[in-house]
Amino acid sequence: MSDTLKYTLPETAIPKTWYNIVADLPTPPPAVLHPGTGKPIGPDDLAPLFPMALILQEVSTEREIEIPRPVRDIYRLWRPSPLYRARRWERSLDTPARIYYKYEGVSPAGSHKPNTSVAQAFYNKEAGVKKLTTETGAGQWGSSLAFAGGLFGLEIDVYMVKVSYHQKPYRRALMETYGARCVASPSTETESGRAILAKDPECNGSLGIAISEAVEMAAKQDHVKYALGSVLNHVLLHQTIIGMETIEQLAMANDQADIVIACAGGGSNFAGLAFPFIGQALRGGKKPRVIAVEPAACPTLTRGRYAYDFGDTAHLTPLVKMHTLGSSFMPPGFHAGGLRYHGMSPLVSHLKELNLIEAVAYQQTECFKAAVAFARSEGIVPAPESSHAIKCALDQALRCKRDGKSEAIVVNLSGHGHFDMQAYSDYFAGKLQDRDYDQAELKRALEELPSVG
Amino acid sequence: MSDTLKYTLPETAIPKTWYNIVADLPTPPPAVLHPGTGKPIGPDDLAPLFPMALILQEVSTEREIEIPRPVRDIYRLWRPSPLYRARRWERSLDTPARIYYKYEGVSPAGSHKPNTSVAQAFYNKEAGVKKLTTETGAGQWGSSLAFAGGLFGLEIDVYMVKVSYHQKPYRRALMETYGARCVASPSTETESGRAILAKDPECNGSLGIAISEAVEMAAKQDHVKYALGSVLNHVLLHQTIIGMETIEQLAMANDQADIVIACAGGGSNFAGLAFPFIGQALRGGKKPRVIAVEPAACPTLTRGRYAYDFGDTAHLTPLVKMHTLGSSFMPPGFHAGGLRYHGMSPLVSHLKELNLIEAVAYQQTECFKAAVAFARSEGIVPAPESSHAIKCALDQALRCKRDGKSEAIVVNLSGHGHFDMQAYSDYFAGKLQDRDYDQAELKRALEELPSVG
Repeated sequence: MSDTLKYTLPETAIPKTWYNIVADLPTPPPAVLHPGTGKPIGPDDLAPLFPMALILQEVSTEREIEIPRPVRDIYRLWRPSPLYRARRWERSLDTPARIYYKYEGVSPAGSHKPNTSVAQAFYNKEAGVKKLTTETGAGQWGSSLAFAGGLFGLEIDVYMVKVSYHQKPYRRALMETYGARCVASPSTETESGRAILAKDPECNGSLGIAISEAVEMAAKQDHVKYALGSVLNHVLLHQTIIGMETIEQLAMANDQADIVIACAGGGSNFAGLAFPFIGQALRGGKKPRVIAVEPAACPTLTRGRYAYDFGDTAHLTPLVKMHTLGSSFMPPGFHAGGLRYHGMSPLVSHLKELNLIEAVAYQQTECFKAAVAFARSEGIVPAPESSHAIKCALDQALRCKRDGKSEAIVVNLSGHGHFDMQAYSDYFAGKLQDRDYDQAELKRALEELPSVG
Repeated sequence: MSDTLKYTLPETAIPKTWYNIVADLPTPPPAVLHPGTGKPIGPDDLAPLFPMALILQEVSTEREIEIPRPVRDIYRLWRPSPLYRARRWERSLDTPARIYYKYEGVSPAGSHKPNTSVAQAFYNKEAGVKKLTTETGAGQWGSSLAFAGGLFGLEIDVYMVKVSYHQKPYRRALMETYGARCVASPSTETESGRAILAKDPECNGSLGIAISEAVEMAAKQDHVKYALGSVLNHVLLHQTIIGMETIEQLAMANDQADIVIACAGGGSNFAGLAFPFIGQALRGGKKPRVIAVEPAACPTLTRGRYAYDFGDTAHLTPLVKMHTLGSSFMPPGFHAGGLRYHGMSPLVSHLKELNLIEAVAYQQTECFKAAVAFARSEGIVPAPESSHAIKCALDQALRCKRDGKSEAIVVNLSGHGHFDMQAYSDYFAGKLQDRDYDQAELKRALEELPSVG
């Protein structure tokens, strides 16, 4: 019996369409509202920020949306990504569970993010856009958009949360290697940034602030658009190739998922793996348990309110209904920068309300402990974000052991931790603290929710 | 016409044997000598350091050596590695050349090194060894052995060149994540280290010193052996799967190599790609040009003497005939830590003497410039070592353009640069200096060569 089982699809198996779960939902997600009028927005309202092709994907109800040939050609650099059976890890846990992990760290930028950055860069290039602005926290998204910008010859300006800009110089170097410009946020380049700095010159920044800066720069310049790495429908759509490939690969293994697990920050890697499985169930197929895993320090799905809120701090975005901690919520410091967003994708939030998914929150040290055990068994060092999914898979595998059940657990290993080794250093040095969110901070931020919808 | 062409072999195409070029050479390589007697050593002389299975591979003259099943099972985690046609890069260079790169950065440790670390860990485990000691410079080898040790349950002690230990904390964190112990060298743990520190308490260390420490600790303890990441015959042997796969993949592309290029520090990634091509030629097949690329700061093949020398600074190893700069040679500072070794693999050196290969040396800034252009076209950020091979491929592609020749250039992209982003930061900040080796230093070190052989 072989120890390592890798299910590799041929390039011809890269999906030719993305899967749009909206087509299969029993009720559509709530409308996106204009913050001034409180009325649903139309495609034209989004035109200053996004090319029309992406706006039409954002509001599409078609089940299948064709992936353009040039996008598929770039996907071939690393796709289909491998699905592994974690036999060594299973054995070390002595579990009867069958654990599979889909590994998205094989992309050049090291995470699932290029699945959408390549598509977004393509549609913007087609629309004559010269430059894209974006925000980044830990840097996974910024480097992925920088990578795609390099391939399509687009200028990329990345507003990087200031604390990460200084703590993660190597992520910044990666973006610059790909040809992007990286700016510490809050910056003096934007009105949003200057307003924040006037109040607090030492401000460390947040994802919400960086989004405000990137949106502002796109809205006020010609041939400049904005790109977002998660949250929006079209971003989640582009990620669904993860789950579509995984279903094919499980079929190669003659297996079907009993539990589907992914971490959730804005929701895109979670949706990427989970939506195709949920879609199968909605169309009458097997219904696995689907679990979104989030950090206890920023527990959007498990502790947030389902309400209309802004996507950014300066309130430049439309209002979306989502699980939110409030757009001014500041989580305590922890090491999974990709899971620090105050809100959750409206589509994922809607699925939670429909009871199609579960959510669970973990502390960071238990996640790093699971990630280290995983690395020693399987050889891959998970990104801190992905370690949350690994911890959940571990717990489910141990439950299977207790109950004597042989279930198939499928987990999205959304990226590697090569640029996050400081977090592992801190973990080994005993410097990591478990931090719950601050209850008073949450109360304060929720009181500022807009009174719309 | 598709832009990106990736040639992916099925797992069943992972070679079942390693290729031993000694079987095809017109003359055998010179004997390894005992430093005390000046006489050829036998297998028993190496037994304190290596398990007998590896010693027999070291002296084997068989053409094919079977890869054990458990080793192949672990290779399946990342092998067969992809061969890419660099169409975007070709187009940006406007060259008629066809450039192929074999990408070994897909391994969990990020380089070609696990091809041998897994094999060495397997044979040591089989022989009842409990712990392996080794040295590492940049950290590619140390983390690869740490990875393999984690899989086989072996303790790993890594003596890491002190300057790298402090400059590359993330490499160290990676080794610790895999469960290895990492010690700054020179250390106070060994006689070799203490002797160096007595003379120079501020010594930054060198690969030669770290080898002395690792060898000493293995030689004086039971159930402890030593593992080397390059130079030796059995290490090069394990890497030949790179070239064997590449030949298969070129056949998928209906192509044959005109030029084969790899960087050469100790010689293992170079041999891994090149030896199977040279072997084909020796057996009457097509004969490509084969180019080893080294740094101008440590130009072993292009400026070293072909002579018997020690492999380490404290002179604990046997004497091998190789291109050497002298075992006490100190190169100036430059960013490709994997190319800082004073010697070159005896087998690669022998092939150079037989005129079966060429060698060329480059300065580091021209290599980084080529690597950045490559990253913007192909999406992968090369390790500083691999950037030397990329620079050579670039020059050959431009020669093809000048001469109007459409040649097939095959280059080994031996690893990614995720743990070397400081070097890219320094490059962008204009902090990198081109440094030739010091001629007086070379003269001094060569005068200390032993008078044997």
